[in-house]
Amino acid sequence: MLQRIDHVGIACRSLESAIEKYTSVFGLSVASQEVNEEQGVKEAMLAVSAGSAGSGAGLAVPFASYIQLLEPLSEDTPVGKFLARRGEGIHHVGYAVANVTDALATITAGGLVRLIDSRPRHGSMGASIAFLHPADLGGVLTELVQPSSSEG
Amino acid sequence: MLQRIDHVGIACRSLESAIEKYTSVFGLSVASQEVNEEQGVKEAMLAVSAGSAGSGAGLAVPFASYIQLLEPLSEDTPVGKFLARRGEGIHHVGYAVANVTDALATITAGGLVRLIDSRPRHGSMGASIAFLHPADLGGVLTELVQPSSSEG
Repeated sequence: MLQRIDHVGIACRSLESAIEKYTSVFGLSVASQEVNEEQGVKEAMLAVSAGSAGSGAGLAVPFASYIQLLEPLSEDTPVGKFLARRGEGIHHVGYAVANVTDALATITAGGLVRLIDSRPRHGSMGASIAFLHPADLGGVLTELVQPSSSEG
Repeated sequence: MLQRIDHVGIACRSLESAIEKYTSVFGLSVASQEVNEEQGVKEAMLAVSAGSAGSGAGLAVPFASYIQLLEPLSEDTPVGKFLARRGEGIHHVGYAVANVTDALATITAGGLVRLIDSRPRHGSMGASIAFLHPADLGGVLTELVQPSSSEG
């Protein structure tokens, strides 16, 4: 079901500072930056991949994975509450799947893990995503990611 | 410098239960299981990759990534203290690098991030690894991983 680790989501207080840190320390590039009102974050995706890919056309590598930096739009958002409770750090992990609707159906049929999202919603870079309940996965907020067809 | 997300390290109270959960829910296989006395953990690596690879000879896929499940050997270990402080959940993220010694030298020269390990030590499946200080990376315990040559 899981194809690869698509991204690690990291909660930060300042997106600008976090981007500056990750680009300076590791030489990464920002692949995408957007605001997701529904999830209450502004965010950046930094491509982690072999070779020099990492921006623009270089993104179409078959096994791209990302560091997703997340700054809450307000304190009253999931990431805002996470920061208040735990401070900055890793917020969730996202795994790529071929089809998120099918994956949700399989997981529902298994009966071991509750869904936060029973239907896919809009994620980064046009992906369809859904979150699984961390209480059923050892405290790990887990996201399933079906990249947009343009991302392959 | 970073080639891919090598693994996400997840702290759990019972390795056996965590393995059972991840294999049941996601159909993953255990690629490796070992005790690392130096780090005070018993652990399992579950391969996440496209296709049906996931055990034995199938591991030699070029972009394998792993879910690393970590149970502390005692309360007085880094993972044991993490569990006491924060409960089960994501403990760290590991990025693959071509050469961990070179990567540490580059990061040291940059002067932005302190090292936990100034020299590589023994990691999972024969890898050479080193940890960077989470206080300099927005609360994210970050590991650099040079896979063993047999893992390519």
